Amino acid sequence: MPSEIETPQFRSDVRAELIRGQAQDSDVIWAARVSTSGEKSLDALDADAARSEGLIRYLMRDRHGTPFEHNSMTFYVQAPIFVFREFQRHRIGWSYNEESGRYRELAPVFYVPDESRPLVQVGKTGHYIFEPGTVEQHEVVARATRRAVSAAYEAYREMLDVGIAREVARGVLPVATYSSMYATCNARSLMSFLSLRVQSADARFPSSPQREIQLVAEQMEAQFARLMPITHKAFIDAGRVAP
Amino acid sequence: MPSEIETPQFRSDVRAELIRGQAQDSDVIWAARVSTSGEKSLDALDADAARSEGLIRYLMRDRHGTPFEHNSMTFYVQAPIFVFREFQRHRIGWSYNEESGRYRELAPVFYVPDESRPLVQVGKTGHYIFEPGTVEQHEVVARATRRAVSAAYEAYREMLDVGIAREVARGVLPVATYSSMYATCNARSLMSFLSLRVQSADARFPSSPQREIQLVAEQMEAQFARLMPITHKAFIDAGRVAP
Amino acid sequence: MPSEIETPQFRSDVRAELIRGQAQDSDVIWAARVSTSGEKSLDALDADAARSEGLIRYLMRDRHGTPFEHNSMTFYVQAPIFVFREFQRHRIGWSYNEESGRYRELAPVFYVPDESRPLVQVGKTGHYIFEPGTVEQHEVVARATRRAVSAAYEAYREMLDVGIAREVARGVLPVATYSSMYATCNARSLMSFLSLRVQSADARFPSSPQREIQLVAEQMEAQFARLMPITHKAFIDAGRVAP
Amino acid sequence: MPSEIETPQFRSDVRAELIRGQAQDSDVIWAARVSTSGEKSLDALDADAARSEGLIRYLMRDRHGTPFEHNSMTFYVQAPIFVFREFQRHRIGWSYNEESGRYRELAPVFYVPDESRPLVQVGKTGHYIFEPGTVEQHEVVARATRRAVSAAYEAYREMLDVGIAREVARGVLPVATYSSMYATCNARSLMSFLSLRVQSADARFPSSPQREIQLVAEQMEAQFARLMPITHKAFIDAGRVAP
Repeated sequence: MPSEIETPQFRSDVRAELIRGQAQDSDVIWAARVSTSGEKSLDALDADAARSEGLIRYLMRDRHGTPFEHNSMTFYVQAPIFVFREFQRHRIGWSYNEESGRYRELAPVFYVPDESRPLVQVGKTGHYIFEPGTVEQHEVVARATRRAVSAAYEAYREMLDVGIAREVARGVLPVATYSSMYATCNARSLMSFLSLRVQSADARFPSSPQREIQLVAEQMEAQFARLMPITHKAFIDAGRVAP
Repeated sequence: MPSEIETPQFRSDVRAELIRGQAQDSDVIWAARVSTSGEKSLDALDADAARSEGLIRYLMRDRHGTPFEHNSMTFYVQAPIFVFREFQRHRIGWSYNEESGRYRELAPVFYVPDESRPLVQVGKTGHYIFEPGTVEQHEVVARATRRAVSAAYEAYREMLDVGIAREVARGVLPVATYSSMYATCNARSLMSFLSLRVQSADARFPSSPQREIQLVAEQMEAQFARLMPITHKAFIDAGRVAP
Repeated sequence: MPSEIETPQFRSDVRAELIRGQAQDSDVIWAARVSTSGEKSLDALDADAARSEGLIRYLMRDRHGTPFEHNSMTFYVQAPIFVFREFQRHRIGWSYNEESGRYRELAPVFYVPDESRPLVQVGKTGHYIFEPGTVEQHEVVARATRRAVSAAYEAYREMLDVGIAREVARGVLPVATYSSMYATCNARSLMSFLSLRVQSADARFPSSPQREIQLVAEQMEAQFARLMPITHKAFIDAGRVAP
Repeated sequence: MPSEIETPQFRSDVRAELIRGQAQDSDVIWAARVSTSGEKSLDALDADAARSEGLIRYLMRDRHGTPFEHNSMTFYVQAPIFVFREFQRHRIGWSYNEESGRYRELAPVFYVPDESRPLVQVGKTGHYIFEPGTVEQHEVVARATRRAVSAAYEAYREMLDVGIAREVARGVLPVATYSSMYATCNARSLMSFLSLRVQSADARFPSSPQREIQLVAEQMEAQFARLMPITHKAFIDAGRVAP
């Protein structure tokens, strides 16, 4: 059976789409209020979160983390494998289901950096700074990536075509191959992820994420900010330290 | 400041109320389908779960657990402290916020077993069987419990009344004191809990939960069965083994 | 069968004893070095940790947490139940096995605060300050606690003596009853615990643990400091922020 | 700076080496005994595990999992990236530190299946059976893999040589590239891993791991069986169901 798509495609973007969000600022409030109110905390289910902004800010600042866990966000993420490798190192408060190279034939869609991607790193380990790179450098990256990736996909197809199992043939595919997954988290585990995967001038602690995962994280952060604006602002104002 | 409620109250029930459930059988399907479908799995968001019953049963039986994690259920639980002690030993996929004896004065509501509670255990460790107990035994339990608990609450009040901090005074309160909490989980972590905290003839592996936590678990299971009937049935049919 | 110990005993101490520690500063180094060295990181197994102090301090400060996880410490803890209730809320990187009131008859050993325990809290929620309390207040606490606890134990014994199951009878026992457990963690999960359960002038983020759990935590911290002095110092110098 | 190793190397093996094991059968016993013995459980620290075989078997069979957590094993693993992708999906009770393609230039060592690797899968999803493959198929795999991988490495080197950052250049490298990591677990999390990553006739529940991760798992299992022979035998006899 020949594959449907024979020609490698190249993309330079990543994507994180909110599929489902059961998450709002008031969730933090009823969860926290049970500490001091017992049975009456059920009244807080309809709390006006804006009036309780001070409580959320206090919980964030003093690292009372558990009230931020009673909510749920599911994202559909498309990104190269090398991004997923970093993403899935986040173990706690995260659930993943990803496309499988054992169960399906992988589509020939590959990541290649575009001109906006800084190519040259200077400085020492852990404190790199990136510079744009010359036109020539961008040309080398585009050309070398396309050539190698096309050769890899050709080898993958050749093996499949003679009946080799997908899980064996996929060995040649590059970590630039796109994959897709559902990732479910809560506001606390998401803030922990964001604190490490977004480099920001607001951050109290430095972090140096790879650009491609930061682009995923930024899309997730925008959705989070929309669902839970008071919580998100408190996170920013606390120097992006997850509670 | 004298407390509002001065007289101890006694209850024999426990309660687990579903506060929020973002959980349905079709969640399992789209999460699983991403393995084999990649981008097209978004179509499965509106899948007819009934048509996919076979997939859910296969995942359960072969212990593919992660597709059961992309959902969220929050329960409001009222039960004695000794139940919460067992409950909170479940670490993974569970979030808790509980009433605090440091931040609030605890209400004098206490658990006392009623006549339906078997009192006498026979057999050896790990394989106990419970027998009802005689009328006299029930009387001893009711009387001894009420007397001791009332004395404890009196001591608690006495300490509070002379200005002792709540966190110190509470030391005398019994583990039969009611507490309340929000507990958030997903279908996978809930099934793991149910497999250990409900004794059932359907179970492939034996378990011997204390009756009071089983009563909490049964209420949670009923809500779970209502939200995710196909998943719940697959769990039962797989011998109550969590995937 | 009458219990061996009939008379309630009172203690005012808590105890955390290091049972086993497979944890040393050099563990952090080889774990971290694999990032940059690949196969050659095995050479680092015998690394001179002192020469690598800078690396440990960098990892701590920039919150590279995983290299602090490849080690193991087991503590035997004796403390009142109300301490264990707080302790066992730490879910990640912690393993617990505790004495069971279902499987054994609990010994009548109870916590009563001694004169060194401040009794009076002033200030508002989340920012309490404790003051010593008067002689009279200490007398009330000692007397009320002993009286209530003795009554509770008497009720417990009375129920056991007529054949009531331990798991039922224990309901009357106070949260001041001592229990014991083994708790196993790693340096990272321990530092997370310490950051919340020890109030310290060195801390970058405030915390307000109950005194009794702080006394447990301090004993654990002393053992940790002995096993991993460079790591511990880096933790202090980073403002007691767990990586 | 030209790399030290310019020529791609090919391997067909994987490797899991026990670096440190603080794990023995008696650990299970003292952890379990605290349930029934309280303070006296410290005596069990020197327990003769053989005499307590029945206890270990009971705990395994009835899924009392926590006593199997108070121990620690660290492995140094070398395997292709596609194996690490599966391995690191195990979140709970596992700690990882892996070689970084951002912090170091990756060595050109790649996985290619040898003749012992079955190449052809028959049957349907989730129930594949593998057949050896013909000589011609093995030749296609060897040739296509070597050719594609060499082209990828050439592209990687070309980019590095003109000053492109490692994290950008690595995109072309295949998932067959070897990586290395330290992985730390305990007996419980290891058994959970083994139950899914080793296909065995002894298993009560079926599993279909990819052969390459099974080869890693088998090496880990052999070390585990050596350190904790009674626990391992109880695991086998319980149908390889992790407690």
